[in-house]
Amino acid sequence: MMGKIGVWLVGARGSVATTAIAGAAAMRAGLAARTGCVTELPDFAGADLPGLEDLVFAGHDVVDTPLVKRAEHLAAAGVLPSTLPAAVTAELEAAEARLRPAPAEGGRSAIDRIVADLTAFRAGLDHVVVVNVSSTEPPCAPHPAHESLAALEGALDTLPSSAQYAYAAFRAGCGFVDFTPSTGARLPALDELARTAGLPYAGRDGKTGETLLRSVLAPMFAQRALNVLSWSGTNLLGGGDGATLADPGAASSKNASKQQVLSRNLGREVDGEVHIDYVPALGDWKTAWDHVLFEGFLGTRMTLQLTWQGCDSALAAPLVLDLARLTGKACREGVAGPVAEFGFFFKDPAGDGPHDLASQYAALREWAHR
Amino acid sequence: MMGKIGVWLVGARGSVATTAIAGAAAMRAGLAARTGCVTELPDFAGADLPGLEDLVFAGHDVVDTPLVKRAEHLAAAGVLPSTLPAAVTAELEAAEARLRPAPAEGGRSAIDRIVADLTAFRAGLDHVVVVNVSSTEPPCAPHPAHESLAALEGALDTLPSSAQYAYAAFRAGCGFVDFTPSTGARLPALDELARTAGLPYAGRDGKTGETLLRSVLAPMFAQRALNVLSWSGTNLLGGGDGATLADPGAASSKNASKQQVLSRNLGREVDGEVHIDYVPALGDWKTAWDHVLFEGFLGTRMTLQLTWQGCDSALAAPLVLDLARLTGKACREGVAGPVAEFGFFFKDPAGDGPHDLASQYAALREWAHR
Amino acid sequence: MMGKIGVWLVGARGSVATTAIAGAAAMRAGLAARTGCVTELPDFAGADLPGLEDLVFAGHDVVDTPLVKRAEHLAAAGVLPSTLPAAVTAELEAAEARLRPAPAEGGRSAIDRIVADLTAFRAGLDHVVVVNVSSTEPPCAPHPAHESLAALEGALDTLPSSAQYAYAAFRAGCGFVDFTPSTGARLPALDELARTAGLPYAGRDGKTGETLLRSVLAPMFAQRALNVLSWSGTNLLGGGDGATLADPGAASSKNASKQQVLSRNLGREVDGEVHIDYVPALGDWKTAWDHVLFEGFLGTRMTLQLTWQGCDSALAAPLVLDLARLTGKACREGVAGPVAEFGFFFKDPAGDGPHDLASQYAALREWAHR
Amino acid sequence: MMGKIGVWLVGARGSVATTAIAGAAAMRAGLAARTGCVTELPDFAGADLPGLEDLVFAGHDVVDTPLVKRAEHLAAAGVLPSTLPAAVTAELEAAEARLRPAPAEGGRSAIDRIVADLTAFRAGLDHVVVVNVSSTEPPCAPHPAHESLAALEGALDTLPSSAQYAYAAFRAGCGFVDFTPSTGARLPALDELARTAGLPYAGRDGKTGETLLRSVLAPMFAQRALNVLSWSGTNLLGGGDGATLADPGAASSKNASKQQVLSRNLGREVDGEVHIDYVPALGDWKTAWDHVLFEGFLGTRMTLQLTWQGCDSALAAPLVLDLARLTGKACREGVAGPVAEFGFFFKDPAGDGPHDLASQYAALREWAHR
Repeated sequence: MMGKIGVWLVGARGSVATTAIAGAAAMRAGLAARTGCVTELPDFAGADLPGLEDLVFAGHDVVDTPLVKRAEHLAAAGVLPSTLPAAVTAELEAAEARLRPAPAEGGRSAIDRIVADLTAFRAGLDHVVVVNVSSTEPPCAPHPAHESLAALEGALDTLPSSAQYAYAAFRAGCGFVDFTPSTGARLPALDELARTAGLPYAGRDGKTGETLLRSVLAPMFAQRALNVLSWSGTNLLGGGDGATLADPGAASSKNASKQQVLSRNLGREVDGEVHIDYVPALGDWKTAWDHVLFEGFLGTRMTLQLTWQGCDSALAAPLVLDLARLTGKACREGVAGPVAEFGFFFKDPAGDGPHDLASQYAALREWAHR
Repeated sequence: MMGKIGVWLVGARGSVATTAIAGAAAMRAGLAARTGCVTELPDFAGADLPGLEDLVFAGHDVVDTPLVKRAEHLAAAGVLPSTLPAAVTAELEAAEARLRPAPAEGGRSAIDRIVADLTAFRAGLDHVVVVNVSSTEPPCAPHPAHESLAALEGALDTLPSSAQYAYAAFRAGCGFVDFTPSTGARLPALDELARTAGLPYAGRDGKTGETLLRSVLAPMFAQRALNVLSWSGTNLLGGGDGATLADPGAASSKNASKQQVLSRNLGREVDGEVHIDYVPALGDWKTAWDHVLFEGFLGTRMTLQLTWQGCDSALAAPLVLDLARLTGKACREGVAGPVAEFGFFFKDPAGDGPHDLASQYAALREWAHR
Repeated sequence: MMGKIGVWLVGARGSVATTAIAGAAAMRAGLAARTGCVTELPDFAGADLPGLEDLVFAGHDVVDTPLVKRAEHLAAAGVLPSTLPAAVTAELEAAEARLRPAPAEGGRSAIDRIVADLTAFRAGLDHVVVVNVSSTEPPCAPHPAHESLAALEGALDTLPSSAQYAYAAFRAGCGFVDFTPSTGARLPALDELARTAGLPYAGRDGKTGETLLRSVLAPMFAQRALNVLSWSGTNLLGGGDGATLADPGAASSKNASKQQVLSRNLGREVDGEVHIDYVPALGDWKTAWDHVLFEGFLGTRMTLQLTWQGCDSALAAPLVLDLARLTGKACREGVAGPVAEFGFFFKDPAGDGPHDLASQYAALREWAHR
Repeated sequence: MMGKIGVWLVGARGSVATTAIAGAAAMRAGLAARTGCVTELPDFAGADLPGLEDLVFAGHDVVDTPLVKRAEHLAAAGVLPSTLPAAVTAELEAAEARLRPAPAEGGRSAIDRIVADLTAFRAGLDHVVVVNVSSTEPPCAPHPAHESLAALEGALDTLPSSAQYAYAAFRAGCGFVDFTPSTGARLPALDELARTAGLPYAGRDGKTGETLLRSVLAPMFAQRALNVLSWSGTNLLGGGDGATLADPGAASSKNASKQQVLSRNLGREVDGEVHIDYVPALGDWKTAWDHVLFEGFLGTRMTLQLTWQGCDSALAAPLVLDLARLTGKACREGVAGPVAEFGFFFKDPAGDGPHDLASQYAALREWAHR
């Protein structure tokens, strides 16, 4: 299909993916406003991005609940409007037909399966962008084979699943986006592969709540010469992500990204812990409380507290669509390696870009129009 | 005194002024870090601003409690470090000797007295900057004589006190800064006078808490295409400013500035009220609670809440010092009229500048180095 | 119908009434748990209260949207479970058939109409309880005719609508509950009528959020000998009640009840304002923020902040059912005048009872079992 | 000294002990109001408790900073009024003269030393109450010797320090209060000893913030039949207690007490974690944030959030004085074993009493007057 961009979702039956697919269908049908879609802002008009109507969804998942069922569950939980699933059933079923079971096996043979599925999907599409929205992995143990592409080829089994997807995406000629804190393409060997193959990648860990706030508030303290003494945070999450992050290993990936935003904006390490608690009754909702103790003129101590109450899927899904469109454009233009200008979307951006949201937005807008 | 900048404080015995004078002394003596002073950030190194040691404080007040006593009260209330007043007594007494009683009468004769006091103070100084840190006035009723300098000359009695100070400042060859929401120089006739006289002015209404936060958070919502449905705020204030703002007339000046920051950053009016409550027991401390209801993807409703607990004088005083130094530089360079690049400091900036804090900071930094 | 208690709802098509009727039906059908129903707690087992299945709903409203439609609207807004309206359509239609238009005219003839409607409804029922859940009225201007029943008879036109309902209820031999801050039965003349007629009444102003919290927290401060310096509150409300209370007249009734809980529990007036803001986008949801500044040992100042985010109808409706059952029992037992033991439910309880929630609960439980 | 009650503080140079000693002196001298002192409430008038002027302070500590110095540090940190240390120097020095170094060795010989110090202190006093306000210990490993006094005598080395103090207190004929979450007297063998010796004890873990709030709010949810789905908490603490509780072992003692208050009041286990973070810059201040997710009528989900910002010493010290007076009375009256009526003060009360604050207050008041 001429001009079409394939969006291959890893975790395609999850809340974020389902919301993205259903939401794109709703917007195309004129049933929903484009709220939450950054690339629909006037600032991005004329940027020649792939259109929403150009996105074709497919993907892998380890579970097999049909997308229509998943959408109905999300509607019952108040995540999707109650009438939406019925209104976009046809589009959900069309995507359903393009989903494939995730490889159950690991290593080389899994990678081959992924490459084959991606290659088949690419046929007839302009470009394909692989977007990881599956569960967060524990941090990846360092391994010498991850340092160069040559070394990696003989040690593909050492890659965690998210990195296998990045490897397979580049081998199949696709762009790659990691919306989770997992490893993804963030290994020297995979960066080398992306650059060699002339393919773009972006990530990692979508910035949708506490860290989004930190990326505007930390610069504010810095620009006002206020001295942040501690920055503490507690996140209450239900849903799949909450259960995953209740595992201290997985949580440690996420917490590292969260505190990084502070140290990068404030120019030094800041005291304070970040907790992620699994509260099943919250479902797809999350609550973040942040407490900032800071020192002003003559050492006077003051505080800021924040409570953010958001719906994880509603916050993440439109950014997945934005990233698919932007990475689609990067594929078209032959961008190779990390797209630092996409740092606006991430807690721990790939490439060398600014860390405050305002500069990240300016960089993104400029990139889109260049 | 070669290179000296006079700082004429209107309300020179108030909490903000006393904190600024005592704090400047403490920093000069190496007794306090430069926390809270924007112009001391590395970004402003090499900008050739007047130094802290070049500032000479004087001013008017309607009360006559000595500065040393005021500083002791502030220390007892925890606003100044308990040992500070004793450590900077000499500097407070030196400033004390330069204070003059505010004119008790109004109109022409008050203005003449102010001009005379300012002229006497200017002798031997390079430049003088008048900074209004007195109590907030009710909004000024529109008057045809305020529209042009020619018309104003015969109707000086119609000016509220803050505007009389702006008029007198320009007549006496001084720059003018309004740190309050009062009228100050914000009348066409006074703008004309400043431009004619080749003098700079800036204001109004120092941005030190709730509005500071709004100027980074409103852009965040806009850049993420999130639809703010309502933004409500309650401010609890003790101290002099609280008592003044308990008067609905005075509060209405302040509230207008506060909601403006939202509409200018979000591109439209936003639902929600702002309350200012006088809570005497809070003393110099203030608490602001903001509640933001916003809509994301597919109409999902989410909220952000903030609580800011700050010490008004500690937040305002270092900005007064920054503005004195910056406006001193503007005087030296012959800048005439409003300095839009000082919008970083204000709720309702004079001149035509950006409304988000990040752009305001960039504009200020660039101005300082140009 | 033997043992049946009629519940005559003033404002029968409003959110609270609709939720109460639909909820009672859902619980009777075993479709919903008894969460929120105080009289279903183990503490009330064996108290011989009228059963949920004994309640028969009827009432007046000035609007004519059918109950089924109202329930569908509430379900769409997330106030009722999405599948509930369809499941209880038959019960909603049965209640619908018992609703009558509220008298459009005022004064004597309105009262006669109400008495006639109540009398017709009472036929075949054991007792009838009139429950006012209509919009809040402005405070009632004092009038000499309100001081005694004899004087009132010639001046019925001076009664506000809620008091006309109380008058008519007593004339028709019904108990009366005012769930709003309106006047209701709280006039000496109406108290006299209730006592004369041997009928119970209760009210006023259901305690469902901020004031509920105040009635447990104020006693805590008192019992710990902590000195509350100020207690400030901001309430954000959408929906019909929000719009009504945006009117300063109506709000003043409500605010008086709210601060009363503090002064009665703390033994003195406490500084601090209460704001009620109308935020239409909140719909049936309300958010209350309270800020308490208190002094402890040696004058140390400390603070407590609360944010309560509740659904007004979900909080009020089960209490309406509790009060119908309890007042039904009071009717059966010939209780005359205010039932002080129902103070547990109200911001401004009728009769002479305790003001802390714990004692109110104990009094209620004891009353139920006596 | 006739009628005098000795107060032997374990951790006598800590913030809580220093504040209690200095505060008692200030109140006796008429320099401070009795805010925060429960036994000074009108409800306790006529209860014939030992007077504040009857308390004589002494104790052990492992550090040797003089009390006067400690008080000066606390004043500099804003915990004590700045002029207080100078005003009560004589009383602090008098207490200083009665302090003894804590035994450095462990086991039998430490106990002998404590017994000897207590016995010497008792001479000339009516009664002595030992109050543990030292750092929190990790939970005590179960040991068969702790089950009976007979078994314990041969295994005194197995007791943690707080339990050694309880043992020594009873051997020396003193009452015992554990204001910390440590073991103290909470072992069957020590309970047996107290009963045999005819001595009272109370504890444990003073309820001064988050748990105090929980003990009034959990009953409120229960009495309103609201279904608490999760109750999460984060505590930010500086000072010595914060550092101790940063150790997961010590924190686990405290967290167990905190969640217990919920399960005892709600009748079942409730989901949700409690975090204790050490934030050194907070000094003696602590901030607790609680998030409660609850379900109301028809399953509607609602939330309550709390932020408590308190000064630990100011909250704890007056309760230490209250407990010294009350336990002094219990000694006089020959009460043996746990005083369940003192549960009002504790997170994890000894003995069999109610768990909601209102009933605890009623029980305490009644006990005092019986």
